[in-house]
Amino acid sequence: MNSFTYYAPTRVEFGLGAESKAGQLAKEYGATKVLVHFGGESAVRSGLIDRVCASLDEAGLFHVELGGVVPNPRLSLVHKGVELARAEGVDFVLAVGGGSVIDSSKSIAYGIANEGDPWDFNIGLRKPTGCAPVGVVLTIAAAGSEMSSSCVITNEETNVKKGCNSDFCRPKFAIMNPELTLSLPWYQTACGCVDIMMHTMERYFTPNATMQITDEIAEGLLRTVFENALILRDNPDDIDARAEVMWAGSLAHNGLTDCGNGGSDFASHALEHELSAAYDVTHGAGLAAIWPSWARYVMDGCLDRFVQFALNVVGVDPEEYETAEEIAHAGIEGMEEFYHALEMPTNLHELGLDLSDDDLAERARRCAANCGGSRGIAKVLYEEDMLEIYRMANA
Amino acid sequence: MNSFTYYAPTRVEFGLGAESKAGQLAKEYGATKVLVHFGGESAVRSGLIDRVCASLDEAGLFHVELGGVVPNPRLSLVHKGVELARAEGVDFVLAVGGGSVIDSSKSIAYGIANEGDPWDFNIGLRKPTGCAPVGVVLTIAAAGSEMSSSCVITNEETNVKKGCNSDFCRPKFAIMNPELTLSLPWYQTACGCVDIMMHTMERYFTPNATMQITDEIAEGLLRTVFENALILRDNPDDIDARAEVMWAGSLAHNGLTDCGNGGSDFASHALEHELSAAYDVTHGAGLAAIWPSWARYVMDGCLDRFVQFALNVVGVDPEEYETAEEIAHAGIEGMEEFYHALEMPTNLHELGLDLSDDDLAERARRCAANCGGSRGIAKVLYEEDMLEIYRMANA
Repeated sequence: MNSFTYYAPTRVEFGLGAESKAGQLAKEYGATKVLVHFGGESAVRSGLIDRVCASLDEAGLFHVELGGVVPNPRLSLVHKGVELARAEGVDFVLAVGGGSVIDSSKSIAYGIANEGDPWDFNIGLRKPTGCAPVGVVLTIAAAGSEMSSSCVITNEETNVKKGCNSDFCRPKFAIMNPELTLSLPWYQTACGCVDIMMHTMERYFTPNATMQITDEIAEGLLRTVFENALILRDNPDDIDARAEVMWAGSLAHNGLTDCGNGGSDFASHALEHELSAAYDVTHGAGLAAIWPSWARYVMDGCLDRFVQFALNVVGVDPEEYETAEEIAHAGIEGMEEFYHALEMPTNLHELGLDLSDDDLAERARRCAANCGGSRGIAKVLYEEDMLEIYRMANA
Repeated sequence: MNSFTYYAPTRVEFGLGAESKAGQLAKEYGATKVLVHFGGESAVRSGLIDRVCASLDEAGLFHVELGGVVPNPRLSLVHKGVELARAEGVDFVLAVGGGSVIDSSKSIAYGIANEGDPWDFNIGLRKPTGCAPVGVVLTIAAAGSEMSSSCVITNEETNVKKGCNSDFCRPKFAIMNPELTLSLPWYQTACGCVDIMMHTMERYFTPNATMQITDEIAEGLLRTVFENALILRDNPDDIDARAEVMWAGSLAHNGLTDCGNGGSDFASHALEHELSAAYDVTHGAGLAAIWPSWARYVMDGCLDRFVQFALNVVGVDPEEYETAEEIAHAGIEGMEEFYHALEMPTNLHELGLDLSDDDLAERARRCAANCGGSRGIAKVLYEEDMLEIYRMANA
């Protein structure tokens, strides 16, 4: 039995039209001046920003807007947001978007509650002493940031993408209306499904896991996304499938799926972060391109878990194979088939990258450096291991 | 798709020796003067109260103690606690015990934050406007009160047992050390396992359930308790099984297992509350004695759910039966076998009660009255339905 802390205080309001509650909820959590932070113009054109602002007006809350967040959210916009928030006396940040918008909002909220540059927290120079309250109107099911303690920002000047984890930034509330995800292109939907599953897979593949109940929840969540991603491929308007994926996205990353697991791996995330920082690929697609190679490289370190995954998530039939290794490999192949069914890549070429061995070596060098030397518990990976996985993914 | 709110803000600290964190955690949540509330002398004799008080001392927190909580916690002790807390200026209630102690603590905490008698909230005379912060050191896995919004108190003068639900009383933190449950007699352990499963079953049996992910979590939780209860019957010292049951107890009742289910039933609970209020039977045993009769009475109203339960939780083999009804009945019979394996009753006689039809009619009359006329969504039960279920359980 491993000790654990579980803390997921975010209030979730899930359902059609739930965004109309934004103003009332922000007010309950003490907002008086709200920064409404969002991404592209689609949130404006769809009328969502207007609806959210109307809800804030109704609650009597002053608000300013700041759009323009891009995937792999950039430090320069965070700086602009902090400046605006400080000038306007903003005391609450309302993120209207997906993981990038939420993480950008969290970073701005750190900037409101702490002096200086919030990037210091991402690179470990200082620790935050607090965070302005953040609320979320979720429009993309993927990152799980709406209930998580993480905040990943890209410094586009140095090409460094780094996360800062602290309970301070966990959103006060998350409004989840699956209808808001209906307009997402299939590619984004598929990337989101990969990311959601990876958040739980990063927690699942550990030699230290001890709790049946955590495994039951993790495997049930993974089966749910597996099945509903395929439903959405054939019918993107299936609102029930949208709902399954959206709620799975939050539970995959709020800590529930690693209770008692004795830590989590997150090496695939670290390997992917280097790709999206350098080549601006979409995070979910990058994860799909890396994971099979990671899995084959580390498999021996927690073979039992790979077998359990193959049987309980991928649905591998044990009668068809003779050894545990074969079952584990069949599970990894099953995931590759699943990724292909979602039109996701399973290697760097399919991701659209054409990299030299020098490129790979540079990614491995940076990955190891940004991880403080090593990462992972399925198998502890050092720079040479990271390079080998990049090479396998590039073969 | 149904709308839902999910809000489970309690911080969980799970693991061996976790009770040493009580003082630090209480301090973080603003405590200065703590009421340490507990049940029988065993918590004192075991040294647990001393360890908890030492932790409070270390954090520099003033504390007073009040023991004496009994199962089906009594209003008279709540009144004593409120009086003591008001006299001593208590601003934090630390429950050291199981569901009865936690609910008694919540009621006292309501009494600290509101004028007048907190019983008013249980009988719906008034609504609370707040609640003093409550922390928990859990010693019995059963009620799930450590993360829940419910507070069930028995007025022993009127024999009325009623619950009050409000987010105000959700504990700030719950310390869960499975070792603390090792000394529980088998009967209490078994009652706890029944109660835990019932908290999720009350949410599961609804004709309105829509989400695969919620079903996956609920069924995984139920399988976990099913299997680990049998492990504990044979080896009560199995600390890993204790851990599974303890964590399942919290997740079964924190709202996770009914997200999107369009409400919950809780008629079995209402039927049982009349038994424990009148005859002081143990809640878990009373639930086991009622559930099979309730299940057979309401089964037609949500047959699909009973079939799914039989297949996915009880492990009924569909090849052995011809109709959905047969599979559903086999699931109920499987639960009766499970209850018997735990030495739990499956009817009122096995519960130790010898009741006349007049007794049953009085229980049904009170149950309907305390439910405001009706209860349940698997099938809406009125007084005559309640009487029929009591009669089936008494046959």
